[in-house]
Amino acid sequence: MSPPSSTADARPHVVIVGGGFGGLYAAKSLAKLPVRITVVDRKNHHTFQPLLYQVATAGLSPGDIATPIRYVLRRLRNVNVLLGEVVGFDLQAKQVQFADAEVMLGYDYLVVSTGVRHSYFGHPEWEPIAPGLKTIEDGLEIRRRLLLAFEHAERQQIATGRYDPLNFVVVGGGPTGVELAGAMAEIARRVMAHDFRAIDPTRASFILIEGAPRVLPGYPEDLSHSAEKQLRHIGVEVRTNTMVTAVEPGRVCIGKDKEELQSALTLWAAGVKASPLGAKLGAELDRVGRVKVSADLSLPAHPEVFVIGDLAAVVDEDGQQLPGVAPVAIQQGTFLRKALSADLAGKKRPGFRYLDKGSMATIGRAAAVAMVRRFHFSGLLAWLAWIFIHIFYLIGFRNRVIVLLEWAWAYIRFESAARLITNPWDSGS
Amino acid sequence: MSPPSSTADARPHVVIVGGGFGGLYAAKSLAKLPVRITVVDRKNHHTFQPLLYQVATAGLSPGDIATPIRYVLRRLRNVNVLLGEVVGFDLQAKQVQFADAEVMLGYDYLVVSTGVRHSYFGHPEWEPIAPGLKTIEDGLEIRRRLLLAFEHAERQQIATGRYDPLNFVVVGGGPTGVELAGAMAEIARRVMAHDFRAIDPTRASFILIEGAPRVLPGYPEDLSHSAEKQLRHIGVEVRTNTMVTAVEPGRVCIGKDKEELQSALTLWAAGVKASPLGAKLGAELDRVGRVKVSADLSLPAHPEVFVIGDLAAVVDEDGQQLPGVAPVAIQQGTFLRKALSADLAGKKRPGFRYLDKGSMATIGRAAAVAMVRRFHFSGLLAWLAWIFIHIFYLIGFRNRVIVLLEWAWAYIRFESAARLITNPWDSGS
Repeated sequence: MSPPSSTADARPHVVIVGGGFGGLYAAKSLAKLPVRITVVDRKNHHTFQPLLYQVATAGLSPGDIATPIRYVLRRLRNVNVLLGEVVGFDLQAKQVQFADAEVMLGYDYLVVSTGVRHSYFGHPEWEPIAPGLKTIEDGLEIRRRLLLAFEHAERQQIATGRYDPLNFVVVGGGPTGVELAGAMAEIARRVMAHDFRAIDPTRASFILIEGAPRVLPGYPEDLSHSAEKQLRHIGVEVRTNTMVTAVEPGRVCIGKDKEELQSALTLWAAGVKASPLGAKLGAELDRVGRVKVSADLSLPAHPEVFVIGDLAAVVDEDGQQLPGVAPVAIQQGTFLRKALSADLAGKKRPGFRYLDKGSMATIGRAAAVAMVRRFHFSGLLAWLAWIFIHIFYLIGFRNRVIVLLEWAWAYIRFESAARLITNPWDSGS
Repeated sequence: MSPPSSTADARPHVVIVGGGFGGLYAAKSLAKLPVRITVVDRKNHHTFQPLLYQVATAGLSPGDIATPIRYVLRRLRNVNVLLGEVVGFDLQAKQVQFADAEVMLGYDYLVVSTGVRHSYFGHPEWEPIAPGLKTIEDGLEIRRRLLLAFEHAERQQIATGRYDPLNFVVVGGGPTGVELAGAMAEIARRVMAHDFRAIDPTRASFILIEGAPRVLPGYPEDLSHSAEKQLRHIGVEVRTNTMVTAVEPGRVCIGKDKEELQSALTLWAAGVKASPLGAKLGAELDRVGRVKVSADLSLPAHPEVFVIGDLAAVVDEDGQQLPGVAPVAIQQGTFLRKALSADLAGKKRPGFRYLDKGSMATIGRAAAVAMVRRFHFSGLLAWLAWIFIHIFYLIGFRNRVIVLLEWAWAYIRFESAARLITNPWDSGS
């Protein structure tokens, strides 16, 4: 199949697979070069993953944090967008293969940025019981289960005069786990408490389980301890040095002696594995399936193929894998312009270097941790920094305004905007 | 099962089944009497149905027009809300029966307001092909199909150099059909046109099919003609006096000679049938399953059971069935306070009388028809009236502000806020 709108076009054709941060920033920066670009994604929208936990906890609506990829790129006349499910590549013929077998897309340059999914440590049977959070659909499913857990308890109390303890278990104490546990504890105490009459949502328990000795293991120790203190303050029980040994409907087993925790809802925020498309590139993979790339982010055997974002195995000067966060993907996407500019000018490509501007994780209302180089912040200041940076980066101006208003309103009124359950009767509750 | 929080409470227990306009306004007005109220719905949210077509056409997000029932009623201390699926009634024992068989809810007064669904005129096999629009889930499914139709055409054009005509067929020229056809034509011309490169969305066709001699058959003739003119102006082909004889994937057959229309998406806005709960009340039903009630909206054999809203067969002075619109349901819900007040005071109940304050239907940007008694309006004036009345009645202050902003923004920029496709690969496209 010929690339869109330009069979006779001599400009190199760049195909970008994946419309996450890496793919979108690659498209935006490469569009300034004399190339034609096609962005392919199996969703029609970019998801602002740093705020996805807000959809899962009913604070924001899907439309607040997801924007159609066509819309984000609409002004770039040399960029086309294609909704399609890529299943593989023919690196010799330089073609992208789609699930509908008759469609093929030729490229001169290929950028693969299809990210990671959750890993259940060899227990795929845990996935339907303990969903993870990577897509809008994940967020809606978690929201549905969270809200239904309270509705179920209310019905149980009315029908039988008692209800099963409302325990919520989050497995994994990285930024996503911390955000989910914190946001759930807050919605229970501040929103649900006013909505239910028969049950007492403030008596719900939130348990955050982390295998390492501290939460946010990727952060400096003082911030981990601050995060744990802030979590405890809003009612989250933190269990570090704790391994999950079994996940079953209604319960989680932890530790060697298989201590049993009742669980009305179990969420999974531990471990990742790379998108299966990484393995279709014929290159060496790391332990979780990320693709090992050269210093210029291309495949060692195929300089015309780049891998960026969470899917790329890239280490910093200390030999540490770069974190799977938006700034890394954004900088890698933007870097591609330098690499292709060098090619077009017949020069040697530079190497990619990550500039770490800082990290932050939010815990709740006015609760967060942040670090910018040597400076560490906690509490309100970190939280305000977190809000402004995230809203600034939200893609699409409209969304930014709406999200700010939603939050301002929720902050003033202790309300929660998006407490909808669609398809309430799909589950057994 | 004892009613919530009040086994020893001597106040009469009113159970309201259905959280639409009728149910919510009944709860709000009855809450002022010395009664206990339980509102039961199988969804956790009230849906503002007059704006549902905006969700279906990607103008608004579900959260903009749906509000948790618990939230709407949170200030009323004598009102409980229960998420539950009612399957029947024991009118002798005065109990409501639920899908989970162990749950039963006793009542002193029962209000049934579970509305209507679509009717496919004896062709239930048409329903999956041509969805109707009554719930948030319906709206999301239509939005998904609408957006995917364009994506599919874009892929087809890129893969094969041509694409099947983008015909959209709406069956039924009442207010919902007119709104859907108008909104789809506008989104194609004003929003999609900027999003796609390979196809030309402005060449899409929109066909509105109505069996009666004119659209909006419930309106005066001059407004029908104005609506038809406004529809044509924004690119909708109107076919009146036309019956649908077959609905199949990809096509619709019309008329006696079975003329075939290709259809990328067929929507159903013709005919209603009553909620099946109406038939569980042992009372006489009308042709479409609505429950025939006495002048005080109660069942002839059970004065303690009321039926209101779209589910009630109520005629005006001319013997015409009242229209299935929000103002009727709202006035009937509010009327119940008078009926119960009379009971509590030992007086005779008054009869319900509908005060017709007017009707309006919207067609597109600055296009609508409206009538207030003898006065008929068209175009911008009718449209502004429509916007302000609908936003005024949107339940929950937060939503009103957000929706106004979304619209103001979309109006200025010709944008569309909620163009998300979730689960794009569920369908065969």
